[in-house]
Amino acid sequence: MNHEFYMARALQLAELGRYSTSPNPRVGCVIVNNGEIVGEGWHQKAGEPHAEVHALRMAGDNARGATAYVTLEPCSHHGRTPPCAEGLIKAGVARVVGACSDPNPLVAGRGYNLLRDSGIEVITPCLETQAIDLNKGFMQRMRSGMPWVRAKLAQSLDGRTAMASGESQWITGAAARADVQRLRAQSCAVITGAGSVLTDNPSMTVRPAETGIEQEQRLWRQPLRVIIDGQQRLSGNEQIFSLPGDILLAVSDAARCKVRRAESLGTLSIWQAPLTMANKVDLSALLAELGERGCNEVLLESGAQLAGAFAAAGLINELVLYCAPTILGSEARPLLSLGLERMQQQLRWQWQDVRMVGGDLKLVLTPDA
Amino acid sequence: MNHEFYMARALQLAELGRYSTSPNPRVGCVIVNNGEIVGEGWHQKAGEPHAEVHALRMAGDNARGATAYVTLEPCSHHGRTPPCAEGLIKAGVARVVGACSDPNPLVAGRGYNLLRDSGIEVITPCLETQAIDLNKGFMQRMRSGMPWVRAKLAQSLDGRTAMASGESQWITGAAARADVQRLRAQSCAVITGAGSVLTDNPSMTVRPAETGIEQEQRLWRQPLRVIIDGQQRLSGNEQIFSLPGDILLAVSDAARCKVRRAESLGTLSIWQAPLTMANKVDLSALLAELGERGCNEVLLESGAQLAGAFAAAGLINELVLYCAPTILGSEARPLLSLGLERMQQQLRWQWQDVRMVGGDLKLVLTPDA
Repeated sequence: MNHEFYMARALQLAELGRYSTSPNPRVGCVIVNNGEIVGEGWHQKAGEPHAEVHALRMAGDNARGATAYVTLEPCSHHGRTPPCAEGLIKAGVARVVGACSDPNPLVAGRGYNLLRDSGIEVITPCLETQAIDLNKGFMQRMRSGMPWVRAKLAQSLDGRTAMASGESQWITGAAARADVQRLRAQSCAVITGAGSVLTDNPSMTVRPAETGIEQEQRLWRQPLRVIIDGQQRLSGNEQIFSLPGDILLAVSDAARCKVRRAESLGTLSIWQAPLTMANKVDLSALLAELGERGCNEVLLESGAQLAGAFAAAGLINELVLYCAPTILGSEARPLLSLGLERMQQQLRWQWQDVRMVGGDLKLVLTPDA
Repeated sequence: MNHEFYMARALQLAELGRYSTSPNPRVGCVIVNNGEIVGEGWHQKAGEPHAEVHALRMAGDNARGATAYVTLEPCSHHGRTPPCAEGLIKAGVARVVGACSDPNPLVAGRGYNLLRDSGIEVITPCLETQAIDLNKGFMQRMRSGMPWVRAKLAQSLDGRTAMASGESQWITGAAARADVQRLRAQSCAVITGAGSVLTDNPSMTVRPAETGIEQEQRLWRQPLRVIIDGQQRLSGNEQIFSLPGDILLAVSDAARCKVRRAESLGTLSIWQAPLTMANKVDLSALLAELGERGCNEVLLESGAQLAGAFAAAGLINELVLYCAPTILGSEARPLLSLGLERMQQQLRWQWQDVRMVGGDLKLVLTPDA
């Protein structure tokens, strides 16, 4: 078997951490001795052992002279757990195949160098695209300090999200809504605006039973709920404040914010947002704040106004559109509030994925570079 | 080989007539003797021999005792050519496998009965769905007197067809535009509105070189161009009137219509349209008129107003949406002008096909029953 074969298995293991590893990356490890898999592991949760530790434990003495496949460069620094590169050296592996480098400035090549310095053969990259894709939030945060912003929108064939009255339940079907639950579950934070909170009274929580995620993968925490309330229209009596889980409320004047909630429900952080020239919450600053707080992937679930503001600022890294086979007409609400005048101003995207989810079409796009 | 194997070949042959057989249906025929294909044929053009005639000619004496596969019930009436059922009987075939029945009231079971009465074994249906799909325009016209209406629209991800100024060239790419050329080529008529003629100055002709269609299949005629001008805004000086090909101009007061064109360019029919209560051209009456004129499939290529009117009247049989990976914003023009107020009024559709055409996504839908 070639390296890609075992790396693909390591990526499958890493994938099991999709809903639980943040702020850490999703990582899998496979140890192969004499063509046989003798150890497997994946990182489950921050503070718990890394993938390599699990795999080395399982391999025991069989790790000696073996090849270790890791989906990310082994760490070289002492964090909450000892460095994995040292673990691999101590276990006596002969070779390490690494999918990609860790952009974490604390690692960034040091992991591979530590191995090489100990006489271990290092082969990298291997299935690099897939490995980076699995951790695009972590990668982006390490490189830019900002999380990966995924904007989720549900629309009709004619690009409408609700009737003019606001009526919108339901445009998309149950399968698409379950898919959104999975997007929430893998996100570190879910962002919405005060307008949506007032209009739709959403919970923005993950409802485990609705996700369809295997029990084995259900180690998640509720994502941080981020509410942008630049005009401070919320009173704190909205449903979202009475549901368990942490909340970050971005306001323009923290001193004047009256929102409170029971401490037993989770932390409420009132965050004084820097404002733009137009006196709106500075969305870049908000994302930097979320990066500081260890958010890898955030999900934007908002109305047309806020989604339009993120798009206009070029802050959307991934667009997830659920398109229902229906026409709502030209009086219905637009997908994004965005005032463009000339074709030259259009926002072009690149297709990443197109597939049916139940009776709806799911489109995934990233900005055209 | 089973019947489906040979019928699939017959359907492939029928498909060769996609751009040329109207007002006749597309039909293919395969004659099999002792497990060997001894004759093949397809109908090319009205007035020329039917598929069965071509196949029987090729088979010659080998037709005796053979099985004939026909994608449509053989005709039993004397039209421009003698009835094919008789031809099959004379040639001495032992068995006829028919994909589906001919809804043409002049045939409608008589073809199969004629064969049975002569002692020929008849097996039907066989790949019926595919056979009906190939001739849905013909089938619909025979049943209802109206053509199959295919509405083609090109839009952005957010359901917009042009900037507010009307600027729209180009939302979709060259491959999608070539695909539209093929839709035109297979249509008996292309319908547009005076508004589009005045704004976009379109030709509405098929440009053979742009279609990418094989030379073998290029027996087509230009589709009839149908222009709806209820307010009689057109002068006759628009480009569309100076291009070769027939035109049907639907007006509210034929006596007051001043549009003329050179006879050498083709026929110009000024059609006095019945009007609706709202004083608009009655679209159902227009379709009945096109049915009378032998139109099987018509392509609606219009702006939001006319497309919205067809949709509101429930007259669209197939929606073909080319969706470009771009966002044009909420000031841009809507897909359809259609004033719906409640979710209950939404127009639901069924997915028929989703595929990439160049860099754009092509969605095909039919109304949800």
